Amino acid sequence: MTLKGQTQTIPPRSGTAFTLSAGETLTVIDPEGGQVADLLAISAADTREMISSGRTLDYAETLYLSTGNLLYSNRSNVMLEIVEDKVGRHDFLLTPCSEATFRLCYDNEPPHPGCHGNLHAALSPYGIAEDAIPVAFNCFMNVPVDGETGRLKVLPPLSRAGDFIRFHARMDLIIGLTACSAPASNGGSFKPIQYRIGQDEFAR
Amino acid sequence: MTLKGQTQTIPPRSGTAFTLSAGETLTVIDPEGGQVADLLAISAADTREMISSGRTLDYAETLYLSTGNLLYSNRSNVMLEIVEDKVGRHDFLLTPCSEATFRLCYDNEPPHPGCHGNLHAALSPYGIAEDAIPVAFNCFMNVPVDGETGRLKVLPPLSRAGDFIRFHARMDLIIGLTACSAPASNGGSFKPIQYRIGQDEFAR
Repeated sequence: MTLKGQTQTIPPRSGTAFTLSAGETLTVIDPEGGQVADLLAISAADTREMISSGRTLDYAETLYLSTGNLLYSNRSNVMLEIVEDKVGRHDFLLTPCSEATFRLCYDNEPPHPGCHGNLHAALSPYGIAEDAIPVAFNCFMNVPVDGETGRLKVLPPLSRAGDFIRFHARMDLIIGLTACSAPASNGGSFKPIQYRIGQDEFAR
Repeated sequence: MTLKGQTQTIPPRSGTAFTLSAGETLTVIDPEGGQVADLLAISAADTREMISSGRTLDYAETLYLSTGNLLYSNRSNVMLEIVEDKVGRHDFLLTPCSEATFRLCYDNEPPHPGCHGNLHAALSPYGIAEDAIPVAFNCFMNVPVDGETGRLKVLPPLSRAGDFIRFHARMDLIIGLTACSAPASNGGSFKPIQYRIGQDEFAR
């Protein structure tokens, strides 16, 4: 159970899920710096409605989302607004790392369920099927793109210890959140992620 | 019914669906030039397995896919390989245009079901739910990205009359394919798309 207002810790290479009510804020914190957190948002009223990278990038007209940008669902409804962002670089292109990612991209690493497996385990009690897990909003993930060639790289996050990104929920949500498991995303290290649910200072 | 080897025409602002067997090729043709075709691929054996932009971009390490690139499913299986490409610029970032796209982005245009609605209608007989429609591989769609700012633009396609892209199916698939309905994608015009299913010259 997530206690409102208290800072929760997600241990390295693991994930969790919790509910977030419309009007509440969710602060995702990188306590040590350089760590990615994959975030999924699913409508609590109908779990077929999920966060959509394709809708969001289309409407935002940018790959790099930050303060003021809205995160849309597959039904083009606003799920979350980014209301504060100390880092300014996050990824919304790539799917959560998975057992297949480790097989295909890290064949010298021991297999790991990855964020995909961790999100699936955490979201199973809410009835979310593994195949339904979409592209996550990858907080702090640093994926620069070469505009000429289209080439993308996964580089260490720009986040420093204590940096955070804060979201304002626009609908009742189920949130999946991880401390990412992929070496490249995290500069080769695995660290915890913290989060905190707050009351809405924006509706007042 | 799709006759193998014969060129089929998708009328402007409409869509269709058909099966494509492992080993067959699918050629998507822009007969007049400057027209986008949204392509979805779904496993015929299990329709929960679908084309995934996030998996594909992660493994390809580029936004701009062309000859030699593989299109992956949400289960990290190869669905299609691009085996020939006369254009070299396609989009795999944005979701098919929908009624909401028209409401949010084209408020001076009459509402239209868009590629999303057309794909949903065409794929309904195969049991594909509307919410399950993912980011499509948007043949000929020209979405340049500014690597510094992340800003993206939807510009007219680079395809000229008769240009095509050819895919090789690596599994038995259900394909959804459109002649795109969004003005910006098509340089303000709406034209037909053609396609042809062929035998596999690559397996010999």
